[in-house]
Amino acid sequence: MNSTKPLQERIDNYLTTYISQFAPSNLQQAMSYSLLAGGKRIRPILVYLTGQMFNCPLEKLDPIAAAIESMHTYSLIHDDLPAMDNDNLRRGKPTCHIQFGHAEAILAGDALQSLAFGLLCENQHIDNQSKINMISELANASGLAGMCLGQSLDLQAEQQKVTLEHLQNIHNYKTGALIQAAVRLGAYASGEVAKPYYQILDDYAQAIGLAFQIQDDILDVIGEQELMGKPQGSDIALEKSTYPSLVGLQNAIEMTNTLYRQAIDSLQQIPYNSQPLQDLAGFIINRNS
Amino acid sequence: MNSTKPLQERIDNYLTTYISQFAPSNLQQAMSYSLLAGGKRIRPILVYLTGQMFNCPLEKLDPIAAAIESMHTYSLIHDDLPAMDNDNLRRGKPTCHIQFGHAEAILAGDALQSLAFGLLCENQHIDNQSKINMISELANASGLAGMCLGQSLDLQAEQQKVTLEHLQNIHNYKTGALIQAAVRLGAYASGEVAKPYYQILDDYAQAIGLAFQIQDDILDVIGEQELMGKPQGSDIALEKSTYPSLVGLQNAIEMTNTLYRQAIDSLQQIPYNSQPLQDLAGFIINRNS
Repeated sequence: MNSTKPLQERIDNYLTTYISQFAPSNLQQAMSYSLLAGGKRIRPILVYLTGQMFNCPLEKLDPIAAAIESMHTYSLIHDDLPAMDNDNLRRGKPTCHIQFGHAEAILAGDALQSLAFGLLCENQHIDNQSKINMISELANASGLAGMCLGQSLDLQAEQQKVTLEHLQNIHNYKTGALIQAAVRLGAYASGEVAKPYYQILDDYAQAIGLAFQIQDDILDVIGEQELMGKPQGSDIALEKSTYPSLVGLQNAIEMTNTLYRQAIDSLQQIPYNSQPLQDLAGFIINRNS
Repeated sequence: MNSTKPLQERIDNYLTTYISQFAPSNLQQAMSYSLLAGGKRIRPILVYLTGQMFNCPLEKLDPIAAAIESMHTYSLIHDDLPAMDNDNLRRGKPTCHIQFGHAEAILAGDALQSLAFGLLCENQHIDNQSKINMISELANASGLAGMCLGQSLDLQAEQQKVTLEHLQNIHNYKTGALIQAAVRLGAYASGEVAKPYYQILDDYAQAIGLAFQIQDDILDVIGEQELMGKPQGSDIALEKSTYPSLVGLQNAIEMTNTLYRQAIDSLQQIPYNSQPLQDLAGFIINRNS
């Protein structure tokens, strides 16, 4: 994804500046550590690319992209905790709780969630109604009807075989909801021009959200430890149902290809230049980490 | 606080109805368990009483009171976790992580935070600018410049003696910020009529917030296990600095009396009936649980 490198740098710079305006503290260090640990920045890039397609200025999108990434980072910190996935490495570095202790990591996640909502309030370029729509969407996508629900369903699915339909349901909440929120918020920021395409953008987001998760499962089987920066096969160790375990590796790969084509088909109904969003869909199913 | 009993029932009913509109799940159960576990409901009552003083209709205040209580409940769930205070009992019942497991408790806290922000968006009776002000205030009071910072500072203060000034600083963030937010949000909901009194209300909130925490410390020394519903002396076991340990029990009691008088003096500058807020201040320093 060389073409999105400038956006990756943009969000990194924005987050660095934003977090450094708070007084230094252990908590701020722990938050910065995880927030600025790099990563693919797929969600904020989705905000930018969706907005850019509708000619929305990047300045309008910065706090929104940062809010989505802050929300995502909090979820990673909490997922990595011993009570959850118990991962020691993330993006090749010690996870937040290994670096700062369990309690501080819980708090860092909590405060990153607050930060996400604060960021959406502060945007000078967005009218109040759009802000409320964004905050409502993000709250919904993150909580009891979104990401947290998906995590909870995922916990219950450990140690047992689930149906393909249920697995898809879990992932729609766990991963899909925030990816969809990223696309929606980029569209909300773009104003009236984007309104006719909300449903098409939802279709795109759902396709890439699911493809993203299936590719994660595939990489968990075939990926290389160096590339992923975390131990492979951790899902197998937990006896979790995954796409490769339910339908076989080859079928899982074909599912990502089908979802990719669905994503592209959706975008082609939008009479704006959707090439960057198409490329992102391609990146998601071709990535090796 | 017999006079606030109807408000306690009101918030209980509102929260019960609100949380039950979500599809049943383990996560929803864990959230409901903690959210509906009773408690004094001081923060939502502060929202109601502040608004009522300015003749704000209770319907306008319901979602705001619920948002503040949802935020408070999330903080209790996470505070009780083994990595934090490791408490097994809360309000006489097993804590969330004892009842539902550590992972589910982390998620329940996370989703209650999202719920708080969602609640503030949904309020039909509040204009958008006021909503944004409330969301911004709550994000600020909860995160890296508020409650989470206070928790983090508190963690670092364990196992060491801190100055009275630093202890006060910790508590201003840890407990004071959300109590102040409760009063502020009640004032924001009341519109123009409340604007001249923001600073006075802040003074009141700061006084009762600190008095609340000192009384907590006092109760930890002299309280009875049956009344508190959690084991006493847990702060001593952690060798935490507390007001009684820093200034002695008698001086700590005198501090709460001084803060009570400051709170009353502040309220008497407001030309509306502040008796219910005065009574609440009295309750805070006289409570035995």
